[in-house]
Amino acid sequence: MADQVTAALNEKAARVLHILRQQGERLVTAESCTGGLIAAFLTAQAGSSDVVEGGLVTYSNSLKTSVLEVSSRTLASQGAVSEAVAVEMAMGALDCAEEATIAIAVTGIAGPGGGTEAKPVGTVCLCVMHGAKTPIHETVYFTGDRETVRLATVDRAFDLVLATLS
Amino acid sequence: MADQVTAALNEKAARVLHILRQQGERLVTAESCTGGLIAAFLTAQAGSSDVVEGGLVTYSNSLKTSVLEVSSRTLASQGAVSEAVAVEMAMGALDCAEEATIAIAVTGIAGPGGGTEAKPVGTVCLCVMHGAKTPIHETVYFTGDRETVRLATVDRAFDLVLATLS
Repeated sequence: MADQVTAALNEKAARVLHILRQQGERLVTAESCTGGLIAAFLTAQAGSSDVVEGGLVTYSNSLKTSVLEVSSRTLASQGAVSEAVAVEMAMGALDCAEEATIAIAVTGIAGPGGGTEAKPVGTVCLCVMHGAKTPIHETVYFTGDRETVRLATVDRAFDLVLATLS
Repeated sequence: MADQVTAALNEKAARVLHILRQQGERLVTAESCTGGLIAAFLTAQAGSSDVVEGGLVTYSNSLKTSVLEVSSRTLASQGAVSEAVAVEMAMGALDCAEEATIAIAVTGIAGPGGGTEAKPVGTVCLCVMHGAKTPIHETVYFTGDRETVRLATVDRAFDLVLATLS
């Protein structure tokens, strides 16, 4: 099962790289709950360095503020898992990576701990920011264990990038 | 084969997290050729957020200088795949992540492209920096395809962290 998901994600990562190349875009990631998995899937593909700038794995709130300049006020008022934080993470990633033209940011609760009634395990907020365009952001609710939630988040992140560039 | 390697790496990631917890350390990664895979293996483990600060996936030279403050002079004189750059990446990661106490940095040539006679595909430079101690750095030469080199690099990175803290 996990193998099939991984194979499908490798195939989708290749499609993301293809469309980035086709459109002359460069991607940067800002990852919390996926902890580097989005960047790892993309860079597993040979030749990815021509369109992948890199990623910021801001697992702690401290790194979210210091590297991505996510506002402490937003973190306190909305929580780390919020669309507002995802938007600020994407913006911060584009600011960090001046050669990047598109950013994908994800923040969520992969579990098994960390869930609340309002934000259960599997809650994930994503944002794609493409240049100066209005960012796309959403909250999705995945079910399953930690690995399932993380892989589903990578999949959804790739879909958002593909939808933005298609 | 890859499944066995992955299972062994998951087990080793758990050991890394255990020793970090035991010694009250917090880890940050700085990854080039592994592209987020070290952070992804660590954060695949439930509860990793208590000892993993995050990671900087500086795939491009531009991100190495802008986020990790690797010197352009070092990049030009030693090349991105060099122990000098690995040391500066580790130092930059600790500077970025003020709550981190130990950094692991890797930069290498995963292939299939990018190899030269002096630095063939599979050449990887690693550095572990633990607080103010003298950093440990080394160059290793792995053989195999892109996935094999990346997984071997994650494995070696975990070994270096374990050796440093043991």
